Amino acid sequence: MKQRISFFTIGVNDLNAMKEFYIHKFGWTPMKDSDGIVFFKLNGFIFGLYPKHELAEDIGVKDDGVGFKNFTLAINMNSESEIDELFEKFKSNGVKIIKSPEKVFWGGYRGYVADVENNYWEFAYNPFLSLDTEGNVIEHQ
Amino acid sequence: MKQRISFFTIGVNDLNAMKEFYIHKFGWTPMKDSDGIVFFKLNGFIFGLYPKHELAEDIGVKDDGVGFKNFTLAINMNSESEIDELFEKFKSNGVKIIKSPEKVFWGGYRGYVADVENNYWEFAYNPFLSLDTEGNVIEHQ
Repeated sequence: MKQRISFFTIGVNDLNAMKEFYIHKFGWTPMKDSDGIVFFKLNGFIFGLYPKHELAEDIGVKDDGVGFKNFTLAINMNSESEIDELFEKFKSNGVKIIKSPEKVFWGGYRGYVADVENNYWEFAYNPFLSLDTEGNVIEHQ
Repeated sequence: MKQRISFFTIGVNDLNAMKEFYIHKFGWTPMKDSDGIVFFKLNGFIFGLYPKHELAEDIGVKDDGVGFKNFTLAINMNSESEIDELFEKFKSNGVKIIKSPEKVFWGGYRGYVADVENNYWEFAYNPFLSLDTEGNVIEHQ
């Protein structure tokens, strides 16, 4: 697995207040601000703001602040089978699987694992998002 | 301010266990594993593991899990004056300053701000680290 991150997503309490902060205080421009989610394209990956209960729901965990820390790191891959193979390897390596890979409503495919201190990593195939040869996220025009 | 991140740092309980996880379960190779800190060079930025009490101490906050969420995002800049100018702008824009910019023991210069939901952003000048024209972190050979 290449050493890269595709998304850093914060689970937020107030999507609008958080969006306004990054737009007006940091001076950033969203690449997407619709469907109840906000994405900022940064250097080779995407910084996302998403309501924390929805982020927790996507993972299938409670947003009680105990297990789930309200942020996720994500690595995008090039196919569903690449993710399946990776999760097989994770299983045999004793990695804690939070959610096995499955198709999701937005057209992608993803699963979640946790590291030894319960930080959540998503591994996703997104047919609408491209990666360059370095594994950086490319924004579709 | 360009839309980029230079560091994503997790405050950890057990540095060794966390390091072993990323090396053996994710198959990653650290670019630095000394002085009680571990860095993995990812796509254009660095993923860091640092004992949470030291990370909290660097910021000047308690690691009681209330204010400080045990992770920081960092944006590196090209000079101390660039950081000073940015913090002047943050002040006049009403951004919550957690720590005003100051010189640090490792030879750099940095300050911290918080967004409206208390996620901590560090802005740093590191004379030992280069950025390419896109703002991606370049690893020194």
